[in-house]
Amino acid sequence: MSRFLNKKYWSLKEYTPGEQPQDQQYIKLNTNESPYPPSKSVLDAVNSEEVSRLNLYSDPECKLLKNKLAQIYDVESKNIYVSNGSDDILNFSFMAFCGDEVEALFPEISYGFYKVYADLYGVKYKRVPLKDDFTIDIDDYCNQNKFIVIANPNAPTGIALTLEEIEKIVKTNPDNIVLIDEAYVDFGADSAYNLTKKYDNLLVVMTYSKSRSLAGARLGFAIGNEEIIKDLEKIKFSTNPYSINRLTLLAGVAALESDNYYKDNAKKIIEARAYTVSELEKLGFSILPSKANFVFAKADFISGEDLYKELKTKGILVRHFTDEKIKDFNRITIGTKEQMQKLIETITLIKGEVK
Amino acid sequence: MSRFLNKKYWSLKEYTPGEQPQDQQYIKLNTNESPYPPSKSVLDAVNSEEVSRLNLYSDPECKLLKNKLAQIYDVESKNIYVSNGSDDILNFSFMAFCGDEVEALFPEISYGFYKVYADLYGVKYKRVPLKDDFTIDIDDYCNQNKFIVIANPNAPTGIALTLEEIEKIVKTNPDNIVLIDEAYVDFGADSAYNLTKKYDNLLVVMTYSKSRSLAGARLGFAIGNEEIIKDLEKIKFSTNPYSINRLTLLAGVAALESDNYYKDNAKKIIEARAYTVSELEKLGFSILPSKANFVFAKADFISGEDLYKELKTKGILVRHFTDEKIKDFNRITIGTKEQMQKLIETITLIKGEVK
Repeated sequence: MSRFLNKKYWSLKEYTPGEQPQDQQYIKLNTNESPYPPSKSVLDAVNSEEVSRLNLYSDPECKLLKNKLAQIYDVESKNIYVSNGSDDILNFSFMAFCGDEVEALFPEISYGFYKVYADLYGVKYKRVPLKDDFTIDIDDYCNQNKFIVIANPNAPTGIALTLEEIEKIVKTNPDNIVLIDEAYVDFGADSAYNLTKKYDNLLVVMTYSKSRSLAGARLGFAIGNEEIIKDLEKIKFSTNPYSINRLTLLAGVAALESDNYYKDNAKKIIEARAYTVSELEKLGFSILPSKANFVFAKADFISGEDLYKELKTKGILVRHFTDEKIKDFNRITIGTKEQMQKLIETITLIKGEVK
Repeated sequence: MSRFLNKKYWSLKEYTPGEQPQDQQYIKLNTNESPYPPSKSVLDAVNSEEVSRLNLYSDPECKLLKNKLAQIYDVESKNIYVSNGSDDILNFSFMAFCGDEVEALFPEISYGFYKVYADLYGVKYKRVPLKDDFTIDIDDYCNQNKFIVIANPNAPTGIALTLEEIEKIVKTNPDNIVLIDEAYVDFGADSAYNLTKKYDNLLVVMTYSKSRSLAGARLGFAIGNEEIIKDLEKIKFSTNPYSINRLTLLAGVAALESDNYYKDNAKKIIEARAYTVSELEKLGFSILPSKANFVFAKADFISGEDLYKELKTKGILVRHFTDEKIKDFNRITIGTKEQMQKLIETITLIKGEVK
């Protein structure tokens, strides 16, 4: 820290992303990436002719991509905001929609970044404990008059709320934004985007990083009422107007032309998830019911931390969190069937060594 | 604006980027892009094999790129910060290094975004008028005890300070960051990056958008004392850790392998600038002495606004600013010699029509 840093950030604790080792080869089951490459349409679109045009700025209004997303989600272009990864939208939302008078409310166990954003902007917040079974009690979020953020499915639990539950939260907090972070929605949960036509306080946030195989391109988007979208645009044009690069915009448009490819991949991941759950349970794991491309699993024969370490030694990365309430678990991304078989073999081996 | 937006942003006036028309073809001399494509090394690096890996996240620490930049600029990796365009660095700097006790100071006529950042974060600031000849009086910036931002060369004037002048400003403000925005430094001015070894309060900001032909890839970087860099990293990891995508990281590394190509291009642009200045002067223009890849030019036969409009009608985009003190001028990006010949022909035509 330099002596020039504004005092309000001195105690700020930044977010710690999952490991992204750049040298050694691992089976990467730690950051919820898709195991499948982008579609052929993306490979075709991001070609050397387009690379040769990188001397020109990208379109700061992202018109083409917004139009295509609007078609897919049956809304208007003005209801779409696109961003440099969905973290950008979360960041701007905490910045724009909270403040001295508006506190934030989100689950105690959820995406760890929500707390960081609140701290960053000096927003007062309340983290609501989950129930003992790690589900969200929606009564905790109804009639709260606060800026509410819920990941659906939740991370790292993978547990999803129903559309009816989401609607109840949105409906009972009419004077505040309810942000539903749907990063993992395409693996079995129901998206709330259609409710944005009915409620002007709902912001649904999605990402290309998971089901659409573009984590490395950095692309997120939000669907919401026109006026909320304008607010996000105002913040974008006051911070970094060209936040999305040319190739990512192209990839984003091209991916939408192959929606079936991505839907098939999501189906394969859901199947591999069922396989993984079943095999892990045979090995003595407790697993939360996941609608995401990961499972949150606790072994009865080894601590969460030791399993993480053993797997890493043996070439498999999973994600372990040290928070007291979830330290017995590991969050395991669902990869291909082959990767999950390798995981099961390796855990079987570890279990043998532990005994 | 929605009813949910925090009141402090209600009167915020966002930045207006130069036009980026997506349909019609123009000779684009309005946003200071390079007219030359990225080097072959970039085209080779951003290949379809790499596109097929976009399902994986980028390296949030950007290690490889930092190492390469450190080599080129003869500093250590820990002295380098890389970002999603240099606007990101300006944004974070206003956020991190200003505040209730630290006001900002920058020229009245300069990159229009400085004012927006100050407004965004509620930072008090003073905009210092330029001298009548549009130069910066460095005495206005010595011993000020404020966060100082100077574009060198300045935009949209193109006029550069000497290294000695920069050093005097840095030296006499030891308790505040002096940020030198060197977006246009490669077209004839002297970079201050070597001074970062001597002064812990100097932050030098550069971009790949101009001389390195990667405006559309979005890549900027800063050179400074390790502790300042850590501050910027803290803000990055508290907002958007994966802010740079995989392909841009690759392009950024690859571009550094072709430094001579980019230096040759800068030389060509400097030559085309000399040609443009000489021809415009023959046509009755006054032009500020530019060390950038643009010239700031005022005609004696047509208003700034009318010239901008006439050029646009005839297929050439330049940048016009409506601020009272510079409304007679247009900022004209220096393209290829051929583009500048076309510009001169077109202005000759317009002059004929006006008479």
